[in-house]
Amino acid sequence: MVPVSATTSSARTRLTPEQRREQLLDLGVRLLASRSLDELSIDLLAEEAGISRGLLYHYFGNKHDFHEAVVRRAADDLIAQTAPPAGGEPLERMSRSMAAYLEYVEANYEGYLSLVKGAAGGNPTLRLIYDEALGALTGRIFAEDAQGELIPDTPVTRLLVRGWAVMVEDMVLTWVADPAGSAVTREELLALIGGSLPTLVGALADPA
Amino acid sequence: MVPVSATTSSARTRLTPEQRREQLLDLGVRLLASRSLDELSIDLLAEEAGISRGLLYHYFGNKHDFHEAVVRRAADDLIAQTAPPAGGEPLERMSRSMAAYLEYVEANYEGYLSLVKGAAGGNPTLRLIYDEALGALTGRIFAEDAQGELIPDTPVTRLLVRGWAVMVEDMVLTWVADPAGSAVTREELLALIGGSLPTLVGALADPA
Repeated sequence: MVPVSATTSSARTRLTPEQRREQLLDLGVRLLASRSLDELSIDLLAEEAGISRGLLYHYFGNKHDFHEAVVRRAADDLIAQTAPPAGGEPLERMSRSMAAYLEYVEANYEGYLSLVKGAAGGNPTLRLIYDEALGALTGRIFAEDAQGELIPDTPVTRLLVRGWAVMVEDMVLTWVADPAGSAVTREELLALIGGSLPTLVGALADPA
Repeated sequence: MVPVSATTSSARTRLTPEQRREQLLDLGVRLLASRSLDELSIDLLAEEAGISRGLLYHYFGNKHDFHEAVVRRAADDLIAQTAPPAGGEPLERMSRSMAAYLEYVEANYEGYLSLVKGAAGGNPTLRLIYDEALGALTGRIFAEDAQGELIPDTPVTRLLVRGWAVMVEDMVLTWVADPAGSAVTREELLALIGGSLPTLVGALADPA
């Protein structure tokens, strides 16, 4: 980890409080990439940022609010980084988005896993952020295809796309935890996560 | 809830300690159907069984061991109840198994949800039982098709079947939580969960 105290202390005179808070959030997200939320303490952030705990409490109120802000930022990053490219064929755009999702989970495994586990385990704040992120990611699929050319927007396909997203999350988390042990190559995984939704929709979107 | 104290107290003279323990486990599983694990206390079981807390501790040691035994029994019930019929066409057998799974979740929603949430949230005991049950349910799919006629047994299909099982779980839990609100009919849900695996395997089992 590169100490950031030198840059942050010189920057402190130039940044507005809001900019300073954003900078601390970015640092929190970087720290979260390789550790769980439980391991991300105010003390650690203070040490890495080279500022006092008291100043952090000034920016974030308490540990809970700090965690919520960091996880929300991490979820926003996930949504932004997995945005499909603006143009191109639908399947190619989905493949690119899926590859970006895999890269995000690889780069942020510990923090992402702790969000998924916390949300599934019933933490209300993490549940809310997780559901918002899942809603944004799956909602984007329908928004991108507003004419319903690929996926008709029905209650059945909404349930299916949500289930598919959870399947992809499980396959990616399982694979990233132990790529070698899984005996599945990266290309095979990408084929699974990129091909599964078109396959499911093609066969099951129309119940008739 | 039907009081069972009358039957259990008369039965107490006839049953072996092991039979008695099994009977208490069955009661625990029934109580768990409509409440979370957190709500299933030794006190409640003692009251429903019409016996003393002390006697329950004699059978189960402590609350943790009691919960573990009840959840393990519930998972065994799930595996038994979702066993496909012995004969018939593969797709029909899978449909029957999927319908049984839906019925199990409907009948045991609260307890099943608390197992899924507890496992996902990182409770080590629940995680172990959940993983064993998931392994049994997905392993059965491969064992039933030992010749690999429907699903070749490869690392890719193992990852895919696991992901599919998690997808089915999510769709069923989402639907059972609010069938009317989902605007998806029971038949549509059954078509999704029964048709998804053959569809995925047909399209994605062979990466070439």
